[in-house]
Amino acid sequence: MQKIESIKEWGGHLNRYRHLSSSCQCEMTFSVYLPPLASREKVPAIYWLSGLTCTDDNFRTKAGAQRYAAELGIALIIPDTSPRGDKIADEKERYDLGQGAGFYINATQEPWVTHYRMYDYITQELPALVESKLPLIPGLRSVSGHSMGGHGALICALKNPGMYQSVSAFAPICNPVECAWGQGCFSAYLGKTRAEWEAYDATCLVNAGVEKIPLLIDQGLGDEFLADQLNSKNLERACQAQDFPITLRMHDDYDHSYHFISTFIGKHLAYHAKALER
Amino acid sequence: MQKIESIKEWGGHLNRYRHLSSSCQCEMTFSVYLPPLASREKVPAIYWLSGLTCTDDNFRTKAGAQRYAAELGIALIIPDTSPRGDKIADEKERYDLGQGAGFYINATQEPWVTHYRMYDYITQELPALVESKLPLIPGLRSVSGHSMGGHGALICALKNPGMYQSVSAFAPICNPVECAWGQGCFSAYLGKTRAEWEAYDATCLVNAGVEKIPLLIDQGLGDEFLADQLNSKNLERACQAQDFPITLRMHDDYDHSYHFISTFIGKHLAYHAKALER
Repeated sequence: MQKIESIKEWGGHLNRYRHLSSSCQCEMTFSVYLPPLASREKVPAIYWLSGLTCTDDNFRTKAGAQRYAAELGIALIIPDTSPRGDKIADEKERYDLGQGAGFYINATQEPWVTHYRMYDYITQELPALVESKLPLIPGLRSVSGHSMGGHGALICALKNPGMYQSVSAFAPICNPVECAWGQGCFSAYLGKTRAEWEAYDATCLVNAGVEKIPLLIDQGLGDEFLADQLNSKNLERACQAQDFPITLRMHDDYDHSYHFISTFIGKHLAYHAKALER
Repeated sequence: MQKIESIKEWGGHLNRYRHLSSSCQCEMTFSVYLPPLASREKVPAIYWLSGLTCTDDNFRTKAGAQRYAAELGIALIIPDTSPRGDKIADEKERYDLGQGAGFYINATQEPWVTHYRMYDYITQELPALVESKLPLIPGLRSVSGHSMGGHGALICALKNPGMYQSVSAFAPICNPVECAWGQGCFSAYLGKTRAEWEAYDATCLVNAGVEKIPLLIDQGLGDEFLADQLNSKNLERACQAQDFPITLRMHDDYDHSYHFISTFIGKHLAYHAKALER
């Protein structure tokens, strides 16, 4: 793991790293914000999973999260959204399949199966790497994300009881097996068997009776993708049916952009900070 | 003036407008953040002048200023950095001359003289326009900016006593007649007469004995442009010689990026808010 950039911000450092990923079988890039406290002691971490088309750059540039992370003494771990590179399978004409659209799952189908292993990367390889190399408290972590990354945060937490102290999401794809984005990626990456899709679907996982962890979700009512892609009401209904704890906050007028995230990111980081108290 | 975009953020609205500028003789685009308070009463405004290569998009996306503007009840007025368009003079191979590099001056030389009138645009046309069309308190305004825009903020305030309640800058070009960026633009836009350059140079204006207004400047010591382009020590020396009030804060390790701005923008907005109190 090689540090390729370091920028001072809010008294801490926003670093970028490159490493050869065993999960994705290619070089991967990610960013980490280390708060000032991390120069003196190990700190907890919040993993941020970004949405379609994003790299590690969007969140670190647009969300305004570093301010809160500095104040709270928490690191931000900001991975890419897929494997990348000229030799990596892609659909160059599409923003919603291939590079930039890893969907945080392990592909089983050609040509994706070799490199598109983002689920293993996010839940196993990356935490092991950063917790061994950076001043992080091993195992003390939470996860959040936006849109496709909100879906990723939800499934990573739901499928791994005890792995994350808390989970939250902004405008997540709540029921990917029922929307075009999810169906497009799942059919390509996972093939035709719907049961395999459902293992990566937050609504299906809740319906299947996974171990409970409170879900915190903020959603804008002016979000142009709410009606067709995000299906937050499907997840809410599943939670109600299963007596599964969910806080789904709907906000008048807010859209799908980082301006929405910037407005509420401080509340999410404060929520995770409580769960991450030592 | 046509509203072409409106995004809810921090309870207020981040709007984008397009209008036909009489100063620049072309269509100009700018953004305005209106805080929640502006839906009930008129508010003061802070003008933000961006640096080389920027449009109105950089600051609104990267600085994290809307949070503070919402809390303080102050509007942000975010203009473009030059005239734009296929028919507007440009140097397409250069980032530091032509479109994106208006330098907030009125050009006198061909081919720039017709459209490159950013000084008039910023100090006259734009305030008159937004104060007549938006819920702003006429005349209650401050100005800030970054790099080329920090230069712009300084000269707009220094050349117009009483027009701005306060002025601040991040890593400004403090003495453009003495650096390559300034010399490149001033020689193209203004011709060879150095006296004309000096009328748009903060250090020269202070040396010339303009009316005093406190200058607040933050500067990173890890800024890659500090030594060759920014010359903050020249301005500081001129202020000391003229007993001109300046607060120049140097910060270890911080660079020239918006990560530096995001760290200190809250302090600047709070500083302006005090000067803008009714």
